[in-house]
Amino acid sequence: MRKPTRQGVLDAAKSIAAILPPTPLLPVDIGSVRAFVKAESLQPVGAFKIRGGWWRLSNLSKEERTRGVVAVSSGNHAQGVAWAARQLGIDAAIVMPRNAPKVKLEATRALGAEIVLYERPGEDRDEVAAREVEARGATLVHAFGDPWVIEGQGSAGIEIAEKLGRAPSRLIVCCGGGGLAAGLALACPDSAIHVVEPHGWDTVGQALAAGKIVRVGDNPPSTICDALQPDATKPINLEVLKNRAEPGVTVTDEEVRAAQRFAFSKLNLVVEPGGAAALAAALAGKVPVDKDTVIMVTGGNTDADSFAETIASG
Amino acid sequence: MRKPTRQGVLDAAKSIAAILPPTPLLPVDIGSVRAFVKAESLQPVGAFKIRGGWWRLSNLSKEERTRGVVAVSSGNHAQGVAWAARQLGIDAAIVMPRNAPKVKLEATRALGAEIVLYERPGEDRDEVAAREVEARGATLVHAFGDPWVIEGQGSAGIEIAEKLGRAPSRLIVCCGGGGLAAGLALACPDSAIHVVEPHGWDTVGQALAAGKIVRVGDNPPSTICDALQPDATKPINLEVLKNRAEPGVTVTDEEVRAAQRFAFSKLNLVVEPGGAAALAAALAGKVPVDKDTVIMVTGGNTDADSFAETIASG
Repeated sequence: MRKPTRQGVLDAAKSIAAILPPTPLLPVDIGSVRAFVKAESLQPVGAFKIRGGWWRLSNLSKEERTRGVVAVSSGNHAQGVAWAARQLGIDAAIVMPRNAPKVKLEATRALGAEIVLYERPGEDRDEVAAREVEARGATLVHAFGDPWVIEGQGSAGIEIAEKLGRAPSRLIVCCGGGGLAAGLALACPDSAIHVVEPHGWDTVGQALAAGKIVRVGDNPPSTICDALQPDATKPINLEVLKNRAEPGVTVTDEEVRAAQRFAFSKLNLVVEPGGAAALAAALAGKVPVDKDTVIMVTGGNTDADSFAETIASG
Repeated sequence: MRKPTRQGVLDAAKSIAAILPPTPLLPVDIGSVRAFVKAESLQPVGAFKIRGGWWRLSNLSKEERTRGVVAVSSGNHAQGVAWAARQLGIDAAIVMPRNAPKVKLEATRALGAEIVLYERPGEDRDEVAAREVEARGATLVHAFGDPWVIEGQGSAGIEIAEKLGRAPSRLIVCCGGGGLAAGLALACPDSAIHVVEPHGWDTVGQALAAGKIVRVGDNPPSTICDALQPDATKPINLEVLKNRAEPGVTVTDEEVRAAQRFAFSKLNLVVEPGGAAALAAALAGKVPVDKDTVIMVTGGNTDADSFAETIASG
């Protein structure tokens, strides 16, 4: 597999700028420091995943396009791929857990994708996907372990530097498999990269510490961050992030909920749990925050009932 | 009192561009039509009122600045004036109803303004304000009946036209006293202006129909739109809007709540009731929506409990 490159991120940013307006960079006070939130929750599909989906699919050959794509996702990558597939007239089948947030299942279906459900925990989603790829002759669009996907996500970093007028000092990043973090590391070579994962699901942080892939434990704790639950990162992500990212940090469900309430009351943003992890780490003082720090708010797709419960419990 | 002018709006837009990034213009599908939402709820004080507050206060003379300002507001104008006053080092006293949303009272206080409470209904807020102006020798900053305030609010229209690359076909505007609507009418002389008011509080719509100021009825119905409850528009607003705006429309509480839920689920935006009135009219089919229509989402400052109740009741 080819390696993702900074030039690829720049090319992706150019392609994405032609179809999507840049998401806003909102000032935010973390204690006494004025930092910025990159509000990817305001993308048309409600998450940054639209970037990687677009860049991967628009790089398929004519022949690959006719055979369609398969993606595996708990929801946001699903919508990103489905959105891009509709724009480009490509068939998409998305393998999703039956217990994914209803709102994400419905939104993916509304974008015209075919949904293939699997049981989480229980079924191996990669096996389900492999079966679909085989049957259709389709291209698998991995949620993070793919050079185009990494480059596409990195386009957010190019937008940030353009709007700030300089490189951010540090990027605090919600982290599942490490696609966005790797893309931002390539986009902003002079910025510190902090990956934030849910407690017990810090497969990227542990891989950074060990210098090799680490799988999630056998009985991982539950987490409200449905978007940040991959089994492990991939070599292509680790290759970019090792010797580059700061040591990983983790956040608890309660810290994540506090960040969702903060985004609600101070920023008027609806943020899903996984999209609030980086903000949670900043508010909890688990990562340094200085003047040109940018906190990634990566998604806002959450069910009304759980969001209502979260904000009313403050 | 001088008349607000288009040149004044352009000057205000230039001044505001130097201190506040433009708010995003988000694509939104209203039925089968792709329109845009101007998300003023993402301003630092959570509402467009920061524009008028800034433009009025930055046009005070040196001597006026030393004596401070007084404003009357249920919350968003309060925060706009308090924000501008802090930026410019001016003392601000804000006359607010005791039953204003807690979140607005607290935010205004947090911005360093002094709060003077009055009873709504019961006390005459203009008398309370006049007393404060007299005692302090301060300048009254009216929430809508002021040429600089109108010009400041109009700066949103300049941003819209710049981002769209052309004038919007129509602007659908949440309307209290008519400050924003008048400013937008000056900013975008070729765009249709639709004012949207809460049922029973359509003092601008009625004034447009009668060609003269109409006061709200003696026993107006309750409304959840706390930001859209002035007793009447002012001659300076009516002067701009008459023979210019389309006939006014009204929305019910239920239509407003449906719009808040739509903004939550489709746009990931937290919108307060009064800030959702224009979107409510568009969704209910009470105003025409075409390709270059822009729907003003004017504020997002709402208590967690009432917002939770609204989204969970969908």
